[in-house]
Amino acid sequence: MNATNYKLTVAYDGTRYNGWQVQSNSTGIQPLIQEAIRTITRQEIILIGSGRTDAGVHALGQVAHFKSSSQLNTHVMLYSLNGLLPRDIRIISMEEVPLTFHAQHSAVKKTYFYHLSLDPIQLPFRQLYSFHIRYSLDLAAMKAAAAEFLGTHDFTAFANEAHRGSAARNPVRTLYRLDIVSEPGAVRLEFEGSGFLYKMVRNITGILIEVASGKKTPSQVKSILESKDRRLAGAAAPPHGLFLMHVDYDVKTGSKNEE
Amino acid sequence: MNATNYKLTVAYDGTRYNGWQVQSNSTGIQPLIQEAIRTITRQEIILIGSGRTDAGVHALGQVAHFKSSSQLNTHVMLYSLNGLLPRDIRIISMEEVPLTFHAQHSAVKKTYFYHLSLDPIQLPFRQLYSFHIRYSLDLAAMKAAAAEFLGTHDFTAFANEAHRGSAARNPVRTLYRLDIVSEPGAVRLEFEGSGFLYKMVRNITGILIEVASGKKTPSQVKSILESKDRRLAGAAAPPHGLFLMHVDYDVKTGSKNEE
Repeated sequence: MNATNYKLTVAYDGTRYNGWQVQSNSTGIQPLIQEAIRTITRQEIILIGSGRTDAGVHALGQVAHFKSSSQLNTHVMLYSLNGLLPRDIRIISMEEVPLTFHAQHSAVKKTYFYHLSLDPIQLPFRQLYSFHIRYSLDLAAMKAAAAEFLGTHDFTAFANEAHRGSAARNPVRTLYRLDIVSEPGAVRLEFEGSGFLYKMVRNITGILIEVASGKKTPSQVKSILESKDRRLAGAAAPPHGLFLMHVDYDVKTGSKNEE
Repeated sequence: MNATNYKLTVAYDGTRYNGWQVQSNSTGIQPLIQEAIRTITRQEIILIGSGRTDAGVHALGQVAHFKSSSQLNTHVMLYSLNGLLPRDIRIISMEEVPLTFHAQHSAVKKTYFYHLSLDPIQLPFRQLYSFHIRYSLDLAAMKAAAAEFLGTHDFTAFANEAHRGSAARNPVRTLYRLDIVSEPGAVRLEFEGSGFLYKMVRNITGILIEVASGKKTPSQVKSILESKDRRLAGAAAPPHGLFLMHVDYDVKTGSKNEE
């Protein structure tokens, strides 16, 4: 049987879940989707995501792939999957891709948003999707500190101990964009990079909040980044303000290197 | 004791509630807030809203008032109230107003938004806050039909049987604005009017969706409005896409006519 490689784009409300993928029996998003695909295809497929997201982190554009020799129509599979899955996990799209496409290894860029709400009283609609800051923020200082992260750096000082086995991974990443975007009663931090170490977005957000509240200066942030010392960077921002927005792939790699 | 009149601005996620105010024992938002104020002030106050919202309808700017001779500081009361209330109901602001201020009678304008999501698969974050339309909408036709509602009309054809006792109310209302605003993957209908009859926003939204999907023409909408016959106007759009955004008051009435 010829296997087909399927790319899924997945949106989820992370509130009820222990993250994308979990070791133990606790509720993960990846195992739920994988099980639904196995039910529909009646095959022991493996679903591979672009990367993990932590408990409580949300996604609008997580990407995953699986290979199957199912003869089911893609459209039918997509709608059957959404029928089986809980309503806080939605498969937004499903498409056939070259066999070489790998949701993690073929990814060339990821975009995360971190949402801060600044109203004195947080709107009920934001409570699960935005970190509430109860004091005013100096956005000019935040922008100056954000600029220190742009470009290619060893981000060790802003990476938590990774999951099993990945401690030896290369800690160098390139941040293409870190925009501070004002919204009514809120601020959105937009991160676009070659990839992100474990808890890197939340750690950077944490220190940018410290800068914006006058507890650290942009030049201290620069020193901490250069120190490669995790103990200096302070606390991570909580997971519920974080959204994985988009994963970009190299079109050439995806379409040429057939197995 | 001199009573002070307090104006509250309230935001709520209507998902869990049977509406703003309910006759029976079922869960209403007004009784919950009223009870919290009684607990804090130790007085048998009555909380009066600008108007009811139905089960499942949300609010970002519902307004209510109550009179109390409590000596508590307004700021303390505001934070105590939010401490007692469930997190899906937030008192956004609280201020002292003239004794003549009445949340319902002094209102001169209300703004409602109705949110439609148009993505083929609805995002999990929108499921409780937006009505999902699974087919494409003709927004030009929708805008043409929306224009028929502008101005002063007898809106009987778009009003459901009201709650007890209000059947004899004047059905004439003035709609100042009905804008159809496109967003990424969504459309927002913005209603601004002198007041709205029971289910009027949802009934108008319902027929505008019918027009946008080719089931009715703008001129049929005009005829139905003129007919004053409720049976012709079709089904109301569901409550979960509706938000009470704002209630405006006549500043002069609020500050001059002291009792």
